[in-house]
Amino acid sequence: MEALRKKIREEGRVTENDILKVDAFLNHQLDVAFLNEIGKEFRRIFADRTFTKILTIEASGIAIASIVAQYFGVPVLFAKKSRSQNIDGDTFRSEVTSYTYEKKAFTITVSKKFLNENDKVLIIDDFLAEGNALKGLIDVVKQSNAHVEAIGIVIEKAYQSGGKTLRAEGFDIVSLARIAEMKNGSLTFVEDEEE
Amino acid sequence: MEALRKKIREEGRVTENDILKVDAFLNHQLDVAFLNEIGKEFRRIFADRTFTKILTIEASGIAIASIVAQYFGVPVLFAKKSRSQNIDGDTFRSEVTSYTYEKKAFTITVSKKFLNENDKVLIIDDFLAEGNALKGLIDVVKQSNAHVEAIGIVIEKAYQSGGKTLRAEGFDIVSLARIAEMKNGSLTFVEDEEE
Repeated sequence: MEALRKKIREEGRVTENDILKVDAFLNHQLDVAFLNEIGKEFRRIFADRTFTKILTIEASGIAIASIVAQYFGVPVLFAKKSRSQNIDGDTFRSEVTSYTYEKKAFTITVSKKFLNENDKVLIIDDFLAEGNALKGLIDVVKQSNAHVEAIGIVIEKAYQSGGKTLRAEGFDIVSLARIAEMKNGSLTFVEDEEE
Repeated sequence: MEALRKKIREEGRVTENDILKVDAFLNHQLDVAFLNEIGKEFRRIFADRTFTKILTIEASGIAIASIVAQYFGVPVLFAKKSRSQNIDGDTFRSEVTSYTYEKKAFTITVSKKFLNENDKVLIIDDFLAEGNALKGLIDVVKQSNAHVEAIGIVIEKAYQSGGKTLRAEGFDIVSLARIAEMKNGSLTFVEDEEE
């Protein structure tokens, strides 16, 4: 998605530690008009697909998923992050190892009321790197006997293993911008042959 | 907002401990079509007002604020919740005492880049009870020298003190549904004379 690559070039920032900050428009301040462009693009890509629900994870997936959902006419469900190990029979739970969030594991929870075997799920998230949060969301969908129809990612760090691993497992993953490399405070994108 | 009171009556649930659960449409599963009705209602109520930014707090405020923002054509900014006491010169910070989130204090943070003296802020949140999160958001806006133009709440627990205290301080707070009482698993609304 050229408009997204342009947005990242113009409003993103690569830190000294080679971390991409997109807090100007995607995960702290939210450019809602631009999120609508992302929604339209996912609708275009998944034009012939049927979903019953969009699943994401708090906090930074929520805005994207909510705006995207308007183009599919389905509800959003967001997994909650918890540090507690409480056993709660009413929720699906999965353990996630995080490399970004204080490097600690957390538990994601989804109420059993809102996901079942009839659901065709589109998973939406802002970033895909090692894919740990995504694997947790996939695990939750499997526990519910629902089906992961597709996965829509805004920015994929293609040099990390998550996308490759999950595509090899058969998941249909679409990333709107794929980063080939980040170093010395700048980044390069994977050329998108389909565009 | 009668449609909201109806939604709460039909899809909300008051627990044994007199907690209102609206996770079917507002803060876990998200009825995005209904959130658009909330957005239209805030636009109707604030028809003659000018805002430059909508401020909310993760996680459950994000979806509402993002959908509402579409009716005002402004960006959203969400305060992040943190347990850390890190001193970070790049953020406005405020301490919040929570009565719902494990009864522990947390810190909210907002990047200084995204809020300044020229901003006219509409604060949006899902619930208003004691008003602690709201007081934290107001504190952040004050630190930035921006101005709180108005506050839009989806559900106010009118029997708790937050709304009364903050209205007495002069804040313009609009709550789309006001709960007068919850007991024995049921609730009653404050009649809205303006409707």
